[in-house]
Amino acid sequence: MKTVAVEELSKQGCSVTVSDLYAMQFEPRATRNDIVGCLHNSDNFSYAVEATEAYKRGCLSNDLIEEQKKVQEADLLIFQFPLYWFSMPAIMKGWMDRVLVQGFAHDFPMCYDTGFMSGDIRYILWPMQHGIMHFCGVKVLEPHICFAPEHVSEEKRKEMLIAWAQRLKTLWKEEPINCSAESCGKNTFLSKRHKENNLKLPKEGLKNK
Amino acid sequence: MKTVAVEELSKQGCSVTVSDLYAMQFEPRATRNDIVGCLHNSDNFSYAVEATEAYKRGCLSNDLIEEQKKVQEADLLIFQFPLYWFSMPAIMKGWMDRVLVQGFAHDFPMCYDTGFMSGDIRYILWPMQHGIMHFCGVKVLEPHICFAPEHVSEEKRKEMLIAWAQRLKTLWKEEPINCSAESCGKNTFLSKRHKENNLKLPKEGLKNK
Repeated sequence: MKTVAVEELSKQGCSVTVSDLYAMQFEPRATRNDIVGCLHNSDNFSYAVEATEAYKRGCLSNDLIEEQKKVQEADLLIFQFPLYWFSMPAIMKGWMDRVLVQGFAHDFPMCYDTGFMSGDIRYILWPMQHGIMHFCGVKVLEPHICFAPEHVSEEKRKEMLIAWAQRLKTLWKEEPINCSAESCGKNTFLSKRHKENNLKLPKEGLKNK
Repeated sequence: MKTVAVEELSKQGCSVTVSDLYAMQFEPRATRNDIVGCLHNSDNFSYAVEATEAYKRGCLSNDLIEEQKKVQEADLLIFQFPLYWFSMPAIMKGWMDRVLVQGFAHDFPMCYDTGFMSGDIRYILWPMQHGIMHFCGVKVLEPHICFAPEHVSEEKRKEMLIAWAQRLKTLWKEEPINCSAESCGKNTFLSKRHKENNLKLPKEGLKNK
């Protein structure tokens, strides 16, 4: 597939650049190593914050700068990959995680927080809940979601921890949720309680920004 | 969150094991290194085939065997992660890709090929098309899907390459598909042509197994 694309596009007069992530031994893990030199806030390492700041200052690691250059110069990006567990393989997910830094690839850190992310988190968890766990015969409990903990007050964060500890107390008594294919997109996929929590959390989170 | 869970569950008398993937420097890349010793088919390396065979023979790399032991002994698995690009971070995706080997985690390699995977591939591509590309302002063309190329005849594989080369010839004239949130789950998300292809391909693929 890759060879065919390179040949055909070259024939059309395109200049084609290939990033073969395996051949490059591309690093999928988002770590402190992606930032060259000092951190913006070394007391409390947040990858997203540090990568954004490093991008602004031109202090991202070389492999990221190289990939960003390729993206910037491209008129067309072709992502070619086998499907692993209802998604792209980890090495390519790492490319997304590390290369598409805020500031470079997008400028609105929180713009999916209301609306899509709140109401439709079932689409996001679907590959994991249905595609991986349900497929492997694992029963799935309701996800426990803490909305944007880095953007809320210290007090709210404590409340999140208390709520989590509280839930754990009765976790073994919980009934599994329905992760069959038929349940996707229907009201049954997330329980009523969970849906209410979802719709409530973002607003609270944003209030404390 | 992790500390709270360890404390609360320990208090309940549970024995808690933590896999801190970053601290372990867990390898997310699925490679030949995951198989110790000889390959099952060194002429044509297929990760899925090799991992399955290596699992049967007890020849998976040690880090995988360790993680599989933890899964096997567990009554409850808690996956704790920040959301990166509408999904789990690459390091955790790598855990799924590498640890949940066929034979260990599931036994039906093709059982999602008809039905769910064919009709509803929009759910699988949604995080990438909408969550990543659309979010970054990238216009998305129809995905080009080759169904299970490793399971079809040599002739079919050649047809796949020809079809891909053919599509590339007019790729620059294609109109982007609709990746807005509103389009998810509606008929407009995939064009009619693409949906027909999707519904056709699996059957053809399975015929040639």
